[in-house]
Amino acid sequence: MTKTLTTYEAVTEFGKKLKTLTSLKALLEWDQETKMPSGGVEFRSNQLEMLSGLIHEKLTSSELNNLLSPLIDMDSGDLVDSDSLDLSQKAALREWRKDVLKAKKLPDRLVKEFSKTTPLAIHAWAKAKEENSFEIFAPHLEKIIDLSKEKAQHLGYEFSPYDALLDEYEPKMTSQKLTKLFSEIKPKLLDLVKTHSKKIDSSFLYGDFDAQKLMSFNKELLDKMGLNKDFYRLDLSNHPFCLSMHPRDVRLTTHINSSDLVAGNISAVIHEAGHALYEMGLPIEHFGTPLCEALSMGIHESQSKFWETMIGQSFEFWEHFFPTLQKLFPENLKDISLDEFYKAINIVKPSFIRIHADEITYNLHVILRFEIEKALLSDELKVSEIPEAWNDKMQSYLGIVPKTFSEGCLQDIHWSCGLFGYFPTYLLGNLYAGQLYHNFRKTHLDYNTKIAQGNLLFIRDYLKKNVHEFGRYYSQEELIKNATGETLNPEYFIQYLDSKYSTL
Amino acid sequence: MTKTLTTYEAVTEFGKKLKTLTSLKALLEWDQETKMPSGGVEFRSNQLEMLSGLIHEKLTSSELNNLLSPLIDMDSGDLVDSDSLDLSQKAALREWRKDVLKAKKLPDRLVKEFSKTTPLAIHAWAKAKEENSFEIFAPHLEKIIDLSKEKAQHLGYEFSPYDALLDEYEPKMTSQKLTKLFSEIKPKLLDLVKTHSKKIDSSFLYGDFDAQKLMSFNKELLDKMGLNKDFYRLDLSNHPFCLSMHPRDVRLTTHINSSDLVAGNISAVIHEAGHALYEMGLPIEHFGTPLCEALSMGIHESQSKFWETMIGQSFEFWEHFFPTLQKLFPENLKDISLDEFYKAINIVKPSFIRIHADEITYNLHVILRFEIEKALLSDELKVSEIPEAWNDKMQSYLGIVPKTFSEGCLQDIHWSCGLFGYFPTYLLGNLYAGQLYHNFRKTHLDYNTKIAQGNLLFIRDYLKKNVHEFGRYYSQEELIKNATGETLNPEYFIQYLDSKYSTL
Repeated sequence: MTKTLTTYEAVTEFGKKLKTLTSLKALLEWDQETKMPSGGVEFRSNQLEMLSGLIHEKLTSSELNNLLSPLIDMDSGDLVDSDSLDLSQKAALREWRKDVLKAKKLPDRLVKEFSKTTPLAIHAWAKAKEENSFEIFAPHLEKIIDLSKEKAQHLGYEFSPYDALLDEYEPKMTSQKLTKLFSEIKPKLLDLVKTHSKKIDSSFLYGDFDAQKLMSFNKELLDKMGLNKDFYRLDLSNHPFCLSMHPRDVRLTTHINSSDLVAGNISAVIHEAGHALYEMGLPIEHFGTPLCEALSMGIHESQSKFWETMIGQSFEFWEHFFPTLQKLFPENLKDISLDEFYKAINIVKPSFIRIHADEITYNLHVILRFEIEKALLSDELKVSEIPEAWNDKMQSYLGIVPKTFSEGCLQDIHWSCGLFGYFPTYLLGNLYAGQLYHNFRKTHLDYNTKIAQGNLLFIRDYLKKNVHEFGRYYSQEELIKNATGETLNPEYFIQYLDSKYSTL
Repeated sequence: MTKTLTTYEAVTEFGKKLKTLTSLKALLEWDQETKMPSGGVEFRSNQLEMLSGLIHEKLTSSELNNLLSPLIDMDSGDLVDSDSLDLSQKAALREWRKDVLKAKKLPDRLVKEFSKTTPLAIHAWAKAKEENSFEIFAPHLEKIIDLSKEKAQHLGYEFSPYDALLDEYEPKMTSQKLTKLFSEIKPKLLDLVKTHSKKIDSSFLYGDFDAQKLMSFNKELLDKMGLNKDFYRLDLSNHPFCLSMHPRDVRLTTHINSSDLVAGNISAVIHEAGHALYEMGLPIEHFGTPLCEALSMGIHESQSKFWETMIGQSFEFWEHFFPTLQKLFPENLKDISLDEFYKAINIVKPSFIRIHADEITYNLHVILRFEIEKALLSDELKVSEIPEAWNDKMQSYLGIVPKTFSEGCLQDIHWSCGLFGYFPTYLLGNLYAGQLYHNFRKTHLDYNTKIAQGNLLFIRDYLKKNVHEFGRYYSQEELIKNATGETLNPEYFIQYLDSKYSTL
């Protein structure tokens, strides 16, 4: 038994070094989006290429293989001496094996080329968005799609190359399953948009907001949500994001937007804070093993969406925070009642920008991207045809068409980062969140009183206890079933939307 | 010939990867001092340990040895096929060999332990300085001195362990040479202090300066000095510094000090900008080889000191910049003439903080540190005795004694970073700078007219042509001789001081 334990510890030591190496990638990416001088982009691309190569080399090394082999059969996945391992260790070994086998499918050259390509593509995307020029971005996007296709071929798939990419963000998810799921809820969402679209005056939410005031509000908010200020920082970036190096060093970003005060500004911070709490809540005692890693991007998005919309756009939340906001921005809010404010921040109205969209139309933005990605990966759509396909779908789902690329197919950073297969997890996140929220309310009958008092820590604790602290111990299905008593059921989210918006 | 060239290219490719890996260390260090959440310090120490180990592993790898061996005999240093290599390649191989042989002397364990220790020591030092508690820092300092001694034993030396550490920052410098050099100039410096100490009203230089105004002035200044704004950024930190990842991504920091407007604020920026211009001016076409690296810290400091004092504290410099500064800070400067300002920023007056000291007493601060370091390394002084030794020397050289540790032996970050042997390069930098400045004036007779017009680019170009673009091609001696026609002669600096301050 001692022998086996020692061997497990040796894998963990190796894993710690590997995670430490991987954390440098997060720092490079965070720095690139927030601090790096523009002239550094080419060298940044070299840094990421080199580092990704090194990480891939370690993950596929005979050293790691030799450390794992005495514990788990790398071919069959059977544990060698099951009795000597506890449940956590078994789960960690299962996930380690999966990571190693997956990494071994990818040639070193491809991993490096991917990492070298994306920083330059991000740079081009930012310029393209600023100058409203699809042409600037198109060649970069083509290269990234080619690399993604190649990646899919190496990873392997049963039906569609897109499945291989999906699996990177949402293990075991396939485009068949998604197509079925999305086609079930799409008509319901379209119905909800029709039923709940309302014309309400929300002009008071718009203005040029003082960045310092907004940032001080944001920081108070993060404090209330239970983010320990010693463990994170908040910066500005082109596109809000959250990157974690370690549960004790998490980097959040937001943007100061001169449009909508909540949707364009505060919501972004709450969203990223939801991600940050997940990363901070992972079981730090397992750092270096897969157990101290997030389970899937769908689960990650469930955490950000839970906070951003279910909590951050609720009446009780603003019962507490509205007076502070009103004092900070009297020119906009001094004559506005809480009721008017609550209705205005929850207007259902087709709009162009996904991350600023309301809770209902948001999901149609995601379906649009899923459909375009799937078509691109299966050669049914060319890069040059994206703008037209985008606009057609916007017309069909939301009845509006963007006038610029920047408000259309250039709005999101994801494709420039090579994140094909990521978008669907935003909708999955909403579905998981809807189900968790249902359970949360059932188990915390006084939730709205507490929230109205500005007490949010019990929410963080609920999510930590049911999601964060398991890391990759369970599968998504198991996790949701353990937390809510049922596997994923999209009806909870649809019911939540219908019931919330019926009262508005 | 083709074979040899190809082999040289292969070393360069390896070198590029190694430099890229090393650049991550700079990012981690910069981030730690400017951005990192305080809770991240322990993981940062793990990151630096892991990365330093990896760098050391690559530098001492049989792969690099096998790449170099067909080109240069690693034992004798003789080139294998001298005719097929150009002068740059020969110089690069000579320096590569030196680096590899040196790295091989250090055990991997020591390199990693050093890197793991310093982030925690820096953290403790900052706390100790803030709380004026030597006790908080002392155990960390003891550990760093022990590690430094061990390092010196591995590196080897002829007379004193301190020599091995000096060589890290100023190749081939020894404490014997330094003791001789410093003992020659110390009486001259003490004389200069006596002769040129004057009581002048400089109270208008003190105040609580608006950070934004100062930063906007700083950025204009950096622009005039010829720093391309696409290639650097300027942040705030506890102790001003400059770190380079690549000539196209250089990070400068400064601090906003509520004391002296020039010595406490603007001078720090000019100083760090001098370092930055050196890094930006290195021959980028040789990136990955030692030719795109700074020659020594003495030469590095000559660049920062040249700019900070010889240019940045000159009358002609402020002929151009004073009106702008006056407009920015009218409450302090509106009734002050350029002449009064110039005299005030050049007061010779013993003071506690090295980096805010005048051009003459500054050097005595450095000699004090050199003497303490030498004593610590040779066991003539214990860590617990530092405060007393510090105060005795302050009394003896400058006639003043600090009332707090923070103004005394805790003022500088260097020891917490493990930089034993670095301080003397500040004085060497002044000596090199004095000699370069003498040559600069001889070869640019209209220098003061140009500077008074705000034209500073020709200074950058002079330094680039004579220093920056050689990287490690020459030794310090050769470089200075090529630039000025003479090897290092401390008289130029002493004469510069005497002649400048005689007119004041």
